[in-house]
Amino acid sequence: IRVGYPEVIYCAGKTVEQVRGIVEFMNTKNNNILATRATEEMFRAVKEVCGEAKYNSMAKIITIEKREIPKKDTYIAVVTAGTSDMPVAEEAAVTAEFLGNKVERIIDVGVAGIHRLFNKLEIIRGAKVIIVAAGMEGALASVVGGLVDKPIIAVPTSVGYGASFNGLAALLSMLNSCASGVSVVNIDNGFGAGYLASVINKL
Amino acid sequence: IRVGYPEVIYCAGKTVEQVRGIVEFMNTKNNNILATRATEEMFRAVKEVCGEAKYNSMAKIITIEKREIPKKDTYIAVVTAGTSDMPVAEEAAVTAEFLGNKVERIIDVGVAGIHRLFNKLEIIRGAKVIIVAAGMEGALASVVGGLVDKPIIAVPTSVGYGASFNGLAALLSMLNSCASGVSVVNIDNGFGAGYLASVINKL
Amino acid sequence: IRVGYPEVIYCAGKTVEQVRGIVEFMNTKNNNILATRATEEMFRAVKEVCGEAKYNSMAKIITIEKREIPKKDTYIAVVTAGTSDMPVAEEAAVTAEFLGNKVERIIDVGVAGIHRLFNKLEIIRGAKVIIVAAGMEGALASVVGGLVDKPIIAVPTSVGYGASFNGLAALLSMLNSCASGVSVVNIDNGFGAGYLASVINKL
Amino acid sequence: IRVGYPEVIYCAGKTVEQVRGIVEFMNTKNNNILATRATEEMFRAVKEVCGEAKYNSMAKIITIEKREIPKKDTYIAVVTAGTSDMPVAEEAAVTAEFLGNKVERIIDVGVAGIHRLFNKLEIIRGAKVIIVAAGMEGALASVVGGLVDKPIIAVPTSVGYGASFNGLAALLSMLNSCASGVSVVNIDNGFGAGYLASVINKL
Amino acid sequence: IRVGYPEVIYCAGKTVEQVRGIVEFMNTKNNNILATRATEEMFRAVKEVCGEAKYNSMAKIITIEKREIPKKDTYIAVVTAGTSDMPVAEEAAVTAEFLGNKVERIIDVGVAGIHRLFNKLEIIRGAKVIIVAAGMEGALASVVGGLVDKPIIAVPTSVGYGASFNGLAALLSMLNSCASGVSVVNIDNGFGAGYLASVINKL
Amino acid sequence: IRVGYPEVIYCAGKTVEQVRGIVEFMNTKNNNILATRATEEMFRAVKEVCGEAKYNSMAKIITIEKREIPKKDTYIAVVTAGTSDMPVAEEAAVTAEFLGNKVERIIDVGVAGIHRLFNKLEIIRGAKVIIVAAGMEGALASVVGGLVDKPIIAVPTSVGYGASFNGLAALLSMLNSCASGVSVVNIDNGFGAGYLASVINKL
Amino acid sequence: IRVGYPEVIYCAGKTVEQVRGIVEFMNTKNNNILATRATEEMFRAVKEVCGEAKYNSMAKIITIEKREIPKKDTYIAVVTAGTSDMPVAEEAAVTAEFLGNKVERIIDVGVAGIHRLFNKLEIIRGAKVIIVAAGMEGALASVVGGLVDKPIIAVPTSVGYGASFNGLAALLSMLNSCASGVSVVNIDNGFGAGYLASVINKL
Amino acid sequence: IRVGYPEVIYCAGKTVEQVRGIVEFMNTKNNNILATRATEEMFRAVKEVCGEAKYNSMAKIITIEKREIPKKDTYIAVVTAGTSDMPVAEEAAVTAEFLGNKVERIIDVGVAGIHRLFNKLEIIRGAKVIIVAAGMEGALASVVGGLVDKPIIAVPTSVGYGASFNGLAALLSMLNSCASGVSVVNIDNGFGAGYLASVINKL
Ligand SMILES: Nc1ncnc2c1ncn2[C@@H]1O[C@H](COP(=O)(O)O)[C@@H](O)[C@H]1O
Ligand SMILES: Nc1ncnc2c1ncn2[C@@H]1O[C@H](COP(=O)(O)O)[C@@H](O)[C@H]1O
Ligand SMILES: Nc1ncnc2c1ncn2[C@@H]1O[C@H](COP(=O)(O)O)[C@@H](O)[C@H]1O
Ligand SMILES: Nc1ncnc2c1ncn2[C@@H]1O[C@H](COP(=O)(O)O)[C@@H](O)[C@H]1O
Ligand SMILES: [Mg+2]
Ligand SMILES: [Mg+2]
Ligand SMILES: [Mg+2]
Ligand SMILES: [Mg+2]
Ligand SMILES: [Mg+2]
Ligand SMILES: [Mg+2]
Ligand SMILES: [Mg+2]
Ligand SMILES: [Mg+2]
Repeated sequence: IRVGYPEVIYCAGKTVEQVRGIVEFMNTKNNNILATRATEEMFRAVKEVCGEAKYNSMAKIITIEKREIPKKDTYIAVVTAGTSDMPVAEEAAVTAEFLGNKVERIIDVGVAGIHRLFNKLEIIRGAKVIIVAAGMEGALASVVGGLVDKPIIAVPTSVGYGASFNGLAALLSMLNSCASGVSVVNIDNGFGAGYLASVINKL
Repeated sequence: IRVGYPEVIYCAGKTVEQVRGIVEFMNTKNNNILATRATEEMFRAVKEVCGEAKYNSMAKIITIEKREIPKKDTYIAVVTAGTSDMPVAEEAAVTAEFLGNKVERIIDVGVAGIHRLFNKLEIIRGAKVIIVAAGMEGALASVVGGLVDKPIIAVPTSVGYGASFNGLAALLSMLNSCASGVSVVNIDNGFGAGYLASVINKL
Repeated sequence: IRVGYPEVIYCAGKTVEQVRGIVEFMNTKNNNILATRATEEMFRAVKEVCGEAKYNSMAKIITIEKREIPKKDTYIAVVTAGTSDMPVAEEAAVTAEFLGNKVERIIDVGVAGIHRLFNKLEIIRGAKVIIVAAGMEGALASVVGGLVDKPIIAVPTSVGYGASFNGLAALLSMLNSCASGVSVVNIDNGFGAGYLASVINKL
Repeated sequence: IRVGYPEVIYCAGKTVEQVRGIVEFMNTKNNNILATRATEEMFRAVKEVCGEAKYNSMAKIITIEKREIPKKDTYIAVVTAGTSDMPVAEEAAVTAEFLGNKVERIIDVGVAGIHRLFNKLEIIRGAKVIIVAAGMEGALASVVGGLVDKPIIAVPTSVGYGASFNGLAALLSMLNSCASGVSVVNIDNGFGAGYLASVINKL
Repeated sequence: IRVGYPEVIYCAGKTVEQVRGIVEFMNTKNNNILATRATEEMFRAVKEVCGEAKYNSMAKIITIEKREIPKKDTYIAVVTAGTSDMPVAEEAAVTAEFLGNKVERIIDVGVAGIHRLFNKLEIIRGAKVIIVAAGMEGALASVVGGLVDKPIIAVPTSVGYGASFNGLAALLSMLNSCASGVSVVNIDNGFGAGYLASVINKL
Repeated sequence: IRVGYPEVIYCAGKTVEQVRGIVEFMNTKNNNILATRATEEMFRAVKEVCGEAKYNSMAKIITIEKREIPKKDTYIAVVTAGTSDMPVAEEAAVTAEFLGNKVERIIDVGVAGIHRLFNKLEIIRGAKVIIVAAGMEGALASVVGGLVDKPIIAVPTSVGYGASFNGLAALLSMLNSCASGVSVVNIDNGFGAGYLASVINKL
Repeated sequence: IRVGYPEVIYCAGKTVEQVRGIVEFMNTKNNNILATRATEEMFRAVKEVCGEAKYNSMAKIITIEKREIPKKDTYIAVVTAGTSDMPVAEEAAVTAEFLGNKVERIIDVGVAGIHRLFNKLEIIRGAKVIIVAAGMEGALASVVGGLVDKPIIAVPTSVGYGASFNGLAALLSMLNSCASGVSVVNIDNGFGAGYLASVINKL
Repeated sequence: IRVGYPEVIYCAGKTVEQVRGIVEFMNTKNNNILATRATEEMFRAVKEVCGEAKYNSMAKIITIEKREIPKKDTYIAVVTAGTSDMPVAEEAAVTAEFLGNKVERIIDVGVAGIHRLFNKLEIIRGAKVIIVAAGMEGALASVVGGLVDKPIIAVPTSVGYGASFNGLAALLSMLNSCASGVSVVNIDNGFGAGYLASVINKL
């Protein structure tokens, strides 16, 4: 485990018993714990063995804060296209916060109503690194990338239907961004985006 | 052949001889002729049998205007993301003009430098129907679609490399546009976009 | 929100609570409301906060008509291949009607029994713009496109199995239509087709 | 080698030398020979070692008729959508003829001008088995399948561009045909269609 | 409806009520009825309105025989690779029988134990037309095609997992068969195979 | 470099100069050298700096034998479906021989004429490990796998056209083999198959 | 059935009744029985007819050991990237053990913490053949392949989400391994890997 | 154009005339110029109008340095798997250098010989941001990501054949990296990686 970092559990594909067991074991050490893709049921089981556990139901993240988390001065902006992208964006935001970063959330600024994005440009530009979570055609990453000179971490989401092919359209769109400064993580990988943003923010 | 419409030849996959032969035959009738995907060599062969033939080398279109083409008052806007998209955009524009429409070209307004698009918004909004040609991530169609209340015909182009998969990324992006009022034609199908825009402009 | 247009809610991926909440909030304003991809359960929740809400269970659309909707004189034709395509076609038709358009429905005229299509040609040709919803091989869009000189909005549906790949076969088929005047929206995107048809019908 | 059948050489991926060598060797036996995907150059080489060889340049087929080929009374119809599909259709037709079948060619009856198809319905319906070669969206197979009660062998061709993906769109379209009685062979596989049609015609 | 043919209902995507209603309506006419992809529940509902309905639970087919079905003398062979392919094979076999054909079933002769296939070669060769249903790698179609000089209708099934991609592997395998005389229908399309086999058997 | 193994150069994507340079450098050491995917031109350049170099033009392999290669007693069988698969099969065979193995080549035993395979069963069964190279539908791997109890290394080749998608059909087919004991290497990867067969043969 | 081998039942897609029936029938003979992809419910049904049946719930395998299984001296290493890959790895390990092989399990040595792999190198290198099960990007197979001179059987698992496309990413990764000596079986095909490893271990 | 940044020309798809023209025009301003994907021929044409132009033939980049470029103290590491990945890596490195960054190149450290990577770990860990360019299975990005706590920009390259599908295998592999801190740009997008690395290095 990396020093200063919390221990991370990826709960998808694990049973409730397994998650509780892992937390119980980790709990004996004095590290903070972050568990992603956790269900409510998993949280209840974890709560039994670790009273200070907290749950963010939108992000589906359980956090256990054993040691206070000092925050960097600079902040990360997490920008979302639509409300359906919020679970992924929250996974990113909560991860980044738990890793010791300030996060500014700028939601629902998709390109279908681009004036909303322009209203928020200043706060986006003030960030040290920017996460853009968008599904469907994922155009928001390119638009933000064209407007801002900071590193953009684009997270395609599986929001959409039909020819979105569970996030493939957004993924391809973001990989082909004509704006410079944009890189991409896996579909719905809010954790990965939040983690990388934290690494960059702390450089 | 539809009355008032020119006769149309799709030259791809035809030999120079075949194209010359078809034009020679059609030339006996009094219709206008439009030949798309025509090479310079095809044009020279056609010129031999039909002196008034003209060639637009960017659009790769041969036109033969036997009867004057009356123009509608309203106009079609043809918007392109980058200079590499211009051959497709020109195929659309020349097709639309030859079918009796005024065309306004708004070029190089891709989302990597979105202020250029905003400088041209008035002329785009003044059109009765808008064609957007873009490759790579094709985000321009969504952005225009979000700013304008007119029908948008999106033409994905094969401009790009790697994960653009010869226009697939732009195609999927446009099909998943979160902006309403956008429909899509085949990759690089400038002719189809110009034709449909003409049908709509003449309604 | 665009003036004169209803407010639109896309219910897929939202909870019943969220949908009711959004409607309750919008209801304070005097706009018409259209909610697509709504379940029966969502409708019942909406009905509690807004008595005049109506539900079209085939289209899965909730409509709330606060202000009378004036209808254009010209009409939109909505053509379907088979009965399984009807939910998508109804999403298109109800959307178009709610946006102030007359709609003619021509159902079950797929190419396996093409005489049924020919019996309805006159009413299709009388429309200002035509929506064709078809799954499986989606050939109907090309056949209608070849017979009619009006703009065709093709909606591939996810109806089919095996190598239909959830609508991909119909989508590709429609994008490659050899008939001019056909453009395409996303798989199952009845709303998008109805919206665009309305924009064109009102030009 | 099956009795009564010609020996068949598939020339693609073979050198001119190899093709000449194989023909020279086979020529010592008294069988008819059919060589598909043959270039002009291959033909000239074959002609040197076998004077009675003939070449159909559209079908790219070399035929050597050692023994007279008796023809069945019933015939096979080969139907094509557009002129670009003709090489594939000819591969099918020449194969079928060489295997001892009468062939009726019905060309350029694609769905963009469906009246041309109806003009030829009688001759199509008179066939014992029907081959339909079409590229782009391949809708012709379904339309013919819906009009005729005979076995349809659909051959998708690689004619098209963009989202035709080298024949994939036509292939999927034909596999999902809503008309009964349609089966499919590989993209551009005129030989396979002609061979199977011959087997069926001789039942 | 074609004379002499039963009326056919495709039940997938229809409600129990709809299926019962359609049967009730058709029942007033004196035609035989075949309903595919029918659940047990649908059968019970149909039984209420039509006492003579029968159900084949493996084929998921409801049959109603109003008029006796005369059988052709020649027979169709239905060959399956494994037991998991049997539902698709039965859909084909029952369809063919109901359309007036004798059917011989040769099951579990996949290429992993090829001697079982050789034990059945005589009966397969005696058929006028052969249906081969196979999932996974679908090699059986090529093997049978290489051994028999009759038309082969290959039906890829969705049996398999991982890189079988729900039947895609078998589909591609069958389309690329190196044996002549093989054509292909959609994944799991037992009905289509049985229908086409019947058309060929009755030529 | 592994002891006892030759040094290996993969020439694809290298210039003639680079290949010559690498060989010249390696030549100073006393190891055997194997260069795959080498053109004739590369061979001529290598020959200049290393007189004992030999070239197998079908395998496109340059070999330089500095130290005699002792051969294992057991042998590897290399089985091919058709003549077009021979370059890949030879890449495997020459690699295996150069690594110190006896190789038996069994060619042209594809499933379209399965009796040829049965004539060679004894020699195939006598091998310690078997390589099967096949394109198109790749069925041969499954058939051999069902007949033999030795490890089968399946090499899909890019031989084919249309829906073979450059070897994808054979690849998927082989991955889904219903016969046990079959594993797969990359499309056209004769070298990898020969190398692995050598490792297994020497166990 | 091969002599000395157990009888194998693949339970996926079979009903509980079918599995019990097959076991009951096989039980009359004196062979060992291995049933893969078996649910707990299937096990309970099998237990009723065959008291000595055992169940490995992680591997989802039922084993019935009628005759003692002699073990080879050499062993097979089964290496896994993460805990989620364990069900597939166990399917491989249990299969191999039941076929008469010793198995060493090396778990949770994925490349994200590569020192764990290095700690286990000796035991991996001591095996006669190595199975590597990994999902997500499947890099572990290449890393092990680069470190060890034994045959590697790579099993891509469907562990992952988004652009892992149910194991496709790991599959492609493993097929393109730059390390020699690696071959691949189907996604999640633990049985196939265990069977092949057994064949190689017993050479 | 962003202040302090060079003007950038993407030459792919432009004619030699166009590239010369653009440089000639830009040259009148006092900015540095970077032209990527430039051929030797383009360079010669540019040289005529701008004598100080330089060409890096491996990176295919033309640089024109009008104003001295100050370099940051911290450096970027550019890591490559094999020699064939060097053109992409050089595009990244030259871009980063021209944007004012020090670059350390660590080449040929692919996972097939992982000890070479470990020999270079110190210099890689010393970088502020790391670019990893790899084709085939792209495993190197995960391995580096697991060993280093800095932001990793992964560039899949189109190096490979068969199931590498022109870089798709590496792309998917990198997107699914089990190591945290890795993000991805388009296949072969060395420029994008170099640009983003520069943005991060200058934070
Ligand atoms: N949402 C997520 N997506 C991808 N990877 C994750 C996610 N959450 C956590 N991880 C990774 O999963 C690792 C823990 O996996 P595990 O040991 O299976 O619980 C962490 O170190 C993270 O790198
Ligand atoms: N069925 C549909 N498919 C795609 N987009 C839709 C659909 N229904 C509504 N929309 C769009 O979704 C927007 C509302 O999304 P939301 O704010 O998430 O409720 C509307 O403005 C429409 O543009
Ligand atoms: N045909 C081939 N396909 C895949 N890999 C190969 C091939 N030939 C050689 N190799 C591998 O390429 C390595 C040499 O690559 P290089 O250093 O680029 O010349 C060898 O060690 C082999 O592992
Ligand atoms: N998990 C598995 N994946 C793939 N094939 C399997 C698996 N388990 C067993 N098999 C194969 O399935 C055959 C038995 O299939 P069946 O006759 O349908 O029960 C065995 O001979 C094995 O070759
Ligand atoms: Mg930027
Ligand atoms: Mg709009
Ligand atoms: Mg039309
Ligand atoms: Mg029919
Ligand atoms: Mg045959
Ligand atoms: Mg075997
Ligand atoms: Mg190795
Ligand atoms: Mg890291």
